[in-house]
Amino acid sequence: MQNSTPHVEALFFDVFGTVVDWRTSVIRELDEFGRSRGLTKDWAAFADRWRGKYQPAMEEVRAGRRPFTILDTLHRESLLQVLDEFLIRRPGEAELQHLTTAWHRLDPWPDSVSGLYRLRQRFFICPLSNGNVALLARLSKRAGLPWDLILCAETAQAYKPKPEAYLRNAALLALQPQACMLVAAHNSDLAAARAVGFRTAFVLRPNEHGPAQRTDLRAEQNWDVTANSFEDLADQLHCPTH
Amino acid sequence: MQNSTPHVEALFFDVFGTVVDWRTSVIRELDEFGRSRGLTKDWAAFADRWRGKYQPAMEEVRAGRRPFTILDTLHRESLLQVLDEFLIRRPGEAELQHLTTAWHRLDPWPDSVSGLYRLRQRFFICPLSNGNVALLARLSKRAGLPWDLILCAETAQAYKPKPEAYLRNAALLALQPQACMLVAAHNSDLAAARAVGFRTAFVLRPNEHGPAQRTDLRAEQNWDVTANSFEDLADQLHCPTH
Repeated sequence: MQNSTPHVEALFFDVFGTVVDWRTSVIRELDEFGRSRGLTKDWAAFADRWRGKYQPAMEEVRAGRRPFTILDTLHRESLLQVLDEFLIRRPGEAELQHLTTAWHRLDPWPDSVSGLYRLRQRFFICPLSNGNVALLARLSKRAGLPWDLILCAETAQAYKPKPEAYLRNAALLALQPQACMLVAAHNSDLAAARAVGFRTAFVLRPNEHGPAQRTDLRAEQNWDVTANSFEDLADQLHCPTH
Repeated sequence: MQNSTPHVEALFFDVFGTVVDWRTSVIRELDEFGRSRGLTKDWAAFADRWRGKYQPAMEEVRAGRRPFTILDTLHRESLLQVLDEFLIRRPGEAELQHLTTAWHRLDPWPDSVSGLYRLRQRFFICPLSNGNVALLARLSKRAGLPWDLILCAETAQAYKPKPEAYLRNAALLALQPQACMLVAAHNSDLAAARAVGFRTAFVLRPNEHGPAQRTDLRAEQNWDVTANSFEDLADQLHCPTH
């Protein structure tokens, strides 16, 4: 970690891609759905298409064309669109709800839980995700993520990378931005956090988008920390081993 | 636990008095302040006076005479008043801030932490306190309270016992009120929670207000659960022992 860094008190974590392997998990959930209905589809393509509607859906909110709307609702809307695109008949309400909440059942990367346990010994640790509170609470309980608290776009009423998403959550902890560090696998998220005064830690997740990933394969700025895993991050931040 | 209770998914906890022994802890902090300045005062009386300004300060917000204001701010304002009443010269900013945040350094009752660890195996557990996020995060980290997330008046922008304080926090977890149970040592808090559909658990804390306590010494309604400790609550809710 570079010096000239004031005392960092809280680590804020991007979640989708940084803490959890959303793509493998969503493909698994879609595959279960398909098998239960005898459907054979390219579920990896379905997952990528579903995720592809994520940024455009949030952009409606960020641009002010739509009031703040939680991600569970956006996920449901985009799922209905992708079901249509894949010519799959819409399931009943219970099954639709189960499928929408595939995003509540994402598995962590192998180093996430053990790394978080180390990091929480020195810092407040919390998500700073575009997911909503209910999604993150369920995901975290299922995955065993030992957050001190859950903060997110919903608690800020703003989606990253809007400045308010970072600043309002820092303010909820009564922290100056300089006492906060964003941990993310995405250079764009870190750039937005740095722009409002956060410290930054890049964690490489080269398989978030599957075997053909071409983005975020390296740190594109001199982030305060660059790490290969949460364990590596804990080492660099001088956190005790368990 | 009485039957006819639908499946409870989340336990919401009152904190001051129910989870932590605020009075003993604040007296300890005041005593440290006094000793550092060579002051001899009745710190128990000071603590009770400080706490006595708690409900009136929140009432300004509840009545709509003041916009939502976090408890740290209300605590600071009332501290300044009590310092004047006790004829104590106002300390400098750093010391004032340290004393205001005495409420971040409250010790749990002896059964709180072990009980919460058991309860979290079956339920989401979170505060539903009139404290603010920063206060609860610091208090909880210091005391080792293993919440799944932190919810409170600030996340609802409403102070208990306003209905919104309960309902908005249930909504953040995407839960119907009937799937939520308030755990509190205060009959009035439970009555307000029941009025909006929450399940209720009374936990007896006969020493919250010191040896002369005369309120909340018994369950005043047929709450869904009445318990003598968090361990007793965990037993009654069929939570595994560690």
